[in-house]
Amino acid sequence: MDTPLQMIINNVSKHIVLTSAEKDIFTGMLQAKNLKRKQPWISTGDVCRHSAFVTAGCLRGYTVDSNGFEHVLSFAPTDWWMADMYSLLTHQPGNLNIEALEDTEMLLLPKTSQEELYKLVPKFERVFRILAEKSLVAYQIRLIDNLSLPAAERYARFCRRYPTLIYQLPQKQIASYIGVTPEFFSKMRKGM
Amino acid sequence: MDTPLQMIINNVSKHIVLTSAEKDIFTGMLQAKNLKRKQPWISTGDVCRHSAFVTAGCLRGYTVDSNGFEHVLSFAPTDWWMADMYSLLTHQPGNLNIEALEDTEMLLLPKTSQEELYKLVPKFERVFRILAEKSLVAYQIRLIDNLSLPAAERYARFCRRYPTLIYQLPQKQIASYIGVTPEFFSKMRKGM
Repeated sequence: MDTPLQMIINNVSKHIVLTSAEKDIFTGMLQAKNLKRKQPWISTGDVCRHSAFVTAGCLRGYTVDSNGFEHVLSFAPTDWWMADMYSLLTHQPGNLNIEALEDTEMLLLPKTSQEELYKLVPKFERVFRILAEKSLVAYQIRLIDNLSLPAAERYARFCRRYPTLIYQLPQKQIASYIGVTPEFFSKMRKGM
Repeated sequence: MDTPLQMIINNVSKHIVLTSAEKDIFTGMLQAKNLKRKQPWISTGDVCRHSAFVTAGCLRGYTVDSNGFEHVLSFAPTDWWMADMYSLLTHQPGNLNIEALEDTEMLLLPKTSQEELYKLVPKFERVFRILAEKSLVAYQIRLIDNLSLPAAERYARFCRRYPTLIYQLPQKQIASYIGVTPEFFSKMRKGM
């Protein structure tokens, strides 16, 4: 089984070829952080100062509306990146809560190191360009789905898009992501 | 007043410094395209093969649900970039319609040229990394707003975020972006 450092090297090596020296620069910037199940990493109002790469477990990003209802925005299982991008880029307090859905291990890349990395190893611009584009596409699809598709079709698309997450996640988390109550979600699945 | 080519050079020069030779490589890849008011650029089912940079006018990206209702996803006024990113990145038929809200002038960067550009002038990775991140943040905020804020607050945020668009856009387009009917939008504005 790969070590966490090997996992993150494999992840970025999908997009660029790194020399040993460049790998050392990159991995030297990373900080390991573990979370227990349900432990928060970032809460609304915090300034997000790191990008997180998940090496075990799963993160969940969610927001809480004025009525106290949670709305799940995104999940990051193993081998995915996660951050409150608004807060990370603007240095403003964020709107997201990010917490561990299960015991989770992450490697954190501080924002200041990331900017340094672009100077030292410019090809990392490519890695984060591609990651941002993929994330952007996921948000675009999600927004279109929310605006234009009935709940059953949103669930079908969720299943196609995140096949491994269907069994990993509590049903109420999937319901929240799709934008329905757990009760409606349960009825809907029985009717499918 | 700047020429369209000078406008796009200014736009990318916010993020990178280009030599004359690099400017020539970039501008040599661009194609001018004009649209009349309400003329479509891309329709649902098309494969999006260009990124568009608006030099005059305004583009509107929208989707149509199964009941025939339009939902506005994004606007691109002068000096903004626009594409169906899902389709552009995956080469699959897209979900978006993109059309001109008024007479519009664009410079198109073909996707194939963009990939070539990354090879010839790698610092363009930085430009499109930053553009993708900003767009991603806009989608993230939009999704959180749609999930958690009442319509009046979504409108207030729209006004803060796109101050120049409030006067430029037809009210029914703003209503569609915010996710309310034109009738509700009109009532809401009178009550503010």
